[in-house]
Amino acid sequence: MHPPAKRVRLSPEARRAQLIELGVEMLATRTLDELSVELIAQKAGISRGLLFHYFASKREFHVEVARAAAGEMIRRTEPNLAQPPVEALRHALDAFMSYVEENPDNYKSLVRGAASGDAEMRAIFDATRATMAQRIIAVVDQLGFTLSARASLAVHGWVAFVEECVVRWIADNVEPGPGSVGREELLEMLTKSLPAITLAASDGEIGTLVQILTASEELSG
Amino acid sequence: MHPPAKRVRLSPEARRAQLIELGVEMLATRTLDELSVELIAQKAGISRGLLFHYFASKREFHVEVARAAAGEMIRRTEPNLAQPPVEALRHALDAFMSYVEENPDNYKSLVRGAASGDAEMRAIFDATRATMAQRIIAVVDQLGFTLSARASLAVHGWVAFVEECVVRWIADNVEPGPGSVGREELLEMLTKSLPAITLAASDGEIGTLVQILTASEELSG
Repeated sequence: MHPPAKRVRLSPEARRAQLIELGVEMLATRTLDELSVELIAQKAGISRGLLFHYFASKREFHVEVARAAAGEMIRRTEPNLAQPPVEALRHALDAFMSYVEENPDNYKSLVRGAASGDAEMRAIFDATRATMAQRIIAVVDQLGFTLSARASLAVHGWVAFVEECVVRWIADNVEPGPGSVGREELLEMLTKSLPAITLAASDGEIGTLVQILTASEELSG
Repeated sequence: MHPPAKRVRLSPEARRAQLIELGVEMLATRTLDELSVELIAQKAGISRGLLFHYFASKREFHVEVARAAAGEMIRRTEPNLAQPPVEALRHALDAFMSYVEENPDNYKSLVRGAASGDAEMRAIFDATRATMAQRIIAVVDQLGFTLSARASLAVHGWVAFVEECVVRWIADNVEPGPGSVGREELLEMLTKSLPAITLAASDGEIGTLVQILTASEELSG
């Protein structure tokens, strides 16, 4: 255990940001519960006591790390609205899968674990999911569909669907076998599932159906 | 606060079962974190100390209450396989919605909150979701579809989709407005969404598509 070569003097804002950033990095391979304040302080080359000069409590520090990690995921999965909608959707899903693959523990602790107990954690989780759903609603809007209240609800549910599929897929693929689902196969399924869910939530008119299937076909072609 | 009229002597097994049952009842309108051991003991007419004669810790008591509540939900939502598959699916979804409507806090704390921290709680949650997915796979099987690994993954994701839609719908309907989604409307959407998701997870062959749409149409007709 060596302290860093030199101890740099930072402004309070910069120090706070540095500590949060270190927390986000360390979160990639451990859950929030496992995130030790001692180790963070050591890596930053400050004392445990000084860390609590910047954060009122371990909980406040954890909340800020969770908020920053959620922000990073939102940035990385931002769809490019200049692309055709189905392409934008596919790329955003690809980025989401990559994010979860790189940060499996972070993701688990933030988006699933943080669902419990702490109201502030819960608010971060809800806001993250809502942002992801709102983006999808914007993309679907581009496809020319008017989303009813029911369809909007379905899009929110679809975000939970995507999360569950990706988390489960990663767990199943720790040891991939001959029957395992491939990454491209999963990406295609997730992309197609949005028009499919939109169909289920619509009144199922033939015109809408054809539009949705056409959008889906582009993916397979 | 009056103690119950008479204090009944029960066998250890019966007392344990009684305490768990009381916990499950009280969980309907409070989360697991809010479930007070003191109140449970008082309602059962025993001392707090005696409760800990039956359970090693508050945590063990909570785990057993969670397990019993999950078991109750699984029993109540069991599909009737003698019905046509789409009807069985609709009835199981209806029972699930009723369960969450009657036990909103219980559901939140068990199926969402319990997702964090405690490994045993997590195992109960995972087993509950897996049971629900396995039942669906059995119903889909009846419809004559062979589910690929990808489609099975999609069914697990669909359970998360249903949970999210129902929980969100209940939260939105605390004060229903003119644009609110009706109960029947939601039930129809959830029922249709399974064939839709199955379609997205299949190779999208026309034959499969027609079968799925036919199954969906039965619902609207």
